Amino acid sequence: MSEHVRQTEPFRWEGIEVRPYKSDGTHFEGVTRQLLFKGGGGLACQLRYFEIAPRGYSSLERHHHAHAVMVVRGRGRVLVGDRLIAARRHDLVRVPPRTWHQFRAGAGAPLGFLCMVDCERDVPERPDAEALAALRHNPAIAAFIRL
Amino acid sequence: MSEHVRQTEPFRWEGIEVRPYKSDGTHFEGVTRQLLFKGGGGLACQLRYFEIAPRGYSSLERHHHAHAVMVVRGRGRVLVGDRLIAARRHDLVRVPPRTWHQFRAGAGAPLGFLCMVDCERDVPERPDAEALAALRHNPAIAAFIRL
Repeated sequence: MSEHVRQTEPFRWEGIEVRPYKSDGTHFEGVTRQLLFKGGGGLACQLRYFEIAPRGYSSLERHHHAHAVMVVRGRGRVLVGDRLIAARRHDLVRVPPRTWHQFRAGAGAPLGFLCMVDCERDVPERPDAEALAALRHNPAIAAFIRL
Repeated sequence: MSEHVRQTEPFRWEGIEVRPYKSDGTHFEGVTRQLLFKGGGGLACQLRYFEIAPRGYSSLERHHHAHAVMVVRGRGRVLVGDRLIAARRHDLVRVPPRTWHQFRAGAGAPLGFLCMVDCERDVPERPDAEALAALRHNPAIAAFIRL
């Protein structure tokens, strides 16, 4: 990567590919991923930019690694453990290890956010029936989650 | 840190202190630092927000760790090795290990940027007379640097 990568249009950068969020699956909707800093060479973390289209959502998952998130475009709601967070531009969201989380854009705006993660990390886990039942014990979370 | 930290006014966040850039020295001017994500607990990196007031500058330094930077407010110029970069909002700047670098805001706007770094990192080194002479070999860099 060059020392300088320009933003060429809003939230698009020269030479950085806009990729699908995940390679397959139907447990997410309308999400793109851009790898802004791939890590290595003196950096133990990556910085990614995710954008969720209006009404879209990321997958409901958890893992041992953590996420450090800053919203940079639009707004949305985020499930983190047992909390539903209404996040606006420049708000920070922390996803601790082993914590169920899902990001959703509302109907009226995309949700674009930076996400810092360790380069070395485990594969996300999706909820089984028991975990889903526990999550759905809270009616607000039951209404929020998308599978 | 809570799972959700709101931006309370532009580039200020609830419960996050606005700190001096460094504890002492006269080799920088008009720089503040905010630690957005301190790392640990599943994250090997920190995310900081630095803001340089108009006409201000960070210290000219280098170190073994790298920086991954995204400009989020205003604009400015950055020395990275032998390159002078004009960086605008949302541009990315990569500072490789052992590379001299300095950030400067212009006269008309602040320069605010996110900076990702490893939690475990070495102490920055400042240039000695020999290193300064080498940097000043390029007239544009000689005119740019501030000590």
